[in-house]
Amino acid sequence: MAIILGIDPGSRVTGFGVINAIGQRVEYITSGCIRCDDGEMPQRLQTIFTSVNELIETWSPQQFAIEQVFMGKNAASALKLGQARGVAMVAAALQQLPVAEYAPRAIKMAVTGTGGAEKEQVQHMVQTLLKLPGRPQADAADALAIALCHAFTAASLVAQAGARGSRRGRPLNFPG
Amino acid sequence: MAIILGIDPGSRVTGFGVINAIGQRVEYITSGCIRCDDGEMPQRLQTIFTSVNELIETWSPQQFAIEQVFMGKNAASALKLGQARGVAMVAAALQQLPVAEYAPRAIKMAVTGTGGAEKEQVQHMVQTLLKLPGRPQADAADALAIALCHAFTAASLVAQAGARGSRRGRPLNFPG
Repeated sequence: MAIILGIDPGSRVTGFGVINAIGQRVEYITSGCIRCDDGEMPQRLQTIFTSVNELIETWSPQQFAIEQVFMGKNAASALKLGQARGVAMVAAALQQLPVAEYAPRAIKMAVTGTGGAEKEQVQHMVQTLLKLPGRPQADAADALAIALCHAFTAASLVAQAGARGSRRGRPLNFPG
Repeated sequence: MAIILGIDPGSRVTGFGVINAIGQRVEYITSGCIRCDDGEMPQRLQTIFTSVNELIETWSPQQFAIEQVFMGKNAASALKLGQARGVAMVAAALQQLPVAEYAPRAIKMAVTGTGGAEKEQVQHMVQTLLKLPGRPQADAADALAIALCHAFTAASLVAQAGARGSRRGRPLNFPG
């Protein structure tokens, strides 16, 4: 059993999702958005830091997963995204949480079976996999997808370490 | 009198410089580099956060100044730089330090009189302005230049607020 905190960082909206993973089985705990549209950048970053810190203190995750670089952005967007991302990662590192990073394509692949999935498809599969009554908000869904990707990858790695032939070479393993 | 901490952020080397500004007069306190070449990014960011925190606790600066975006970098470099920059800024914000940002050209202009100055020229002028016995290391010199830029800009703003005609319209004011 492992509680996983997934973070989808952004300089204006940072999505978060907390799930419980028991082997291949996953349970929804909570999700939502850290909004910091207002104010100067240092205060916005402080909001991200404080909120991620509070999430860690409230839910005591054992694992922390975050989306990797989105290279398509220009340098100015990448710098802002980097600031938000750095602050979220340092909040995790300061609490001795191991940080796992996943590329956007790997996350989509893990939850939808295709690396080129649309946002709606990700939302739909997150709802299905976690048995949610409604479709989660887009940033929260992305963060939950990151946590799910980590759960499936970790479960798969454990399975591989156990040398179960049928699962070997399938880095991502999920129901459906 | 104000103690100013200048930070030149980088994902591998972050320069720092602490000066004391008394009106237009400036005094060197300390400078150096936070090195985090080794390890994973979360640990490198943690080193930056902890070190900036220690600098603030040790020298009790009232002001914090950091270099603005360098737009010339590509998205991947900008993201890494952003992470380091975000972590340094959040360390300052969490300690209630006001954060001032200066563009590279403004910093060069403040210490050398030209926005297109070479690195060596910046190092030379930092040495001269702070009466240092030797030329400071490049990253430390950049951080000291940021602190100096803030000192001169702040002093000039105070002078302008006091409506001293001869200084009005000269945003940056320095000896020599």
